Amino acid sequence: MTEQTCSIARSLEVLGERWTFLVLREAVSGTTRFADFRAALGVASDVLSDRLSTLVAAGVLEKRPYREPGARVRDSYHVTPAGHELRIVLGALQQWGDEHRPYAPGPTVLRRSAAGRPLRVAFVDDEGTEVPLDEVRFVRTSTYPS
Amino acid sequence: MTEQTCSIARSLEVLGERWTFLVLREAVSGTTRFADFRAALGVASDVLSDRLSTLVAAGVLEKRPYREPGARVRDSYHVTPAGHELRIVLGALQQWGDEHRPYAPGPTVLRRSAAGRPLRVAFVDDEGTEVPLDEVRFVRTSTYPS
Repeated sequence: MTEQTCSIARSLEVLGERWTFLVLREAVSGTTRFADFRAALGVASDVLSDRLSTLVAAGVLEKRPYREPGARVRDSYHVTPAGHELRIVLGALQQWGDEHRPYAPGPTVLRRSAAGRPLRVAFVDDEGTEVPLDEVRFVRTSTYPS
Repeated sequence: MTEQTCSIARSLEVLGERWTFLVLREAVSGTTRFADFRAALGVASDVLSDRLSTLVAAGVLEKRPYREPGARVRDSYHVTPAGHELRIVLGALQQWGDEHRPYAPGPTVLRRSAAGRPLRVAFVDDEGTEVPLDEVRFVRTSTYPS
């Protein structure tokens, strides 16, 4: 694979496969066991196994062994700090889908602060203050491919 | 296609195909013409044509006819307000890729305010103030499938 200079393309090398974001959505919601991912998503075992491996290899999930009484040792899957930061991407996709691809009965999940205040995903400056979208610039650096 | 209750899944119905995000990245950077998308991305014409159609059908891009002297009328592709809001998703993917899938020579694109201040994508409350990631909750509503 050639190295992608674009960070969007590099993120999508990990996240762009079908099911990967939805596996991540479950993991962020606290699902850790293979059978629980499978039940929640209705995805084929071989596909689920492949997507979990991709996320482990990318450092988004980590495997930990566990053993239930009388059963063999199995792996569970836990969100790493790098995976935790993908909540921003998940929240942005959720917000866009709720606005531009609405589900008639209303949103199934809301973003809220620990104190219960409504949250949005937005651009903020270095003081943590929101910057309106039309003031956001994507600026090319000297390493941008010519 | 069954209607997806999850807004992440609905967003990915539009955005989840390979190339779609990268077509969008070019559109947001000002590319409008088929030949220019093709040259920038090195993608096959039939795939590009399909992805542009998906984005037009979803209201992310809109077609406008144009004609160069001596040539036939062609379509150009322009970002709609709904597409403009996807800059938040693109920015979030870019930021995550720069941190967790870094390109050795450094980022090729930076997020900056109109005044040149560094920007990040983050959760903000209803007053536009950043909320730390560990204070963000995803709360299920009564329409969440049981």
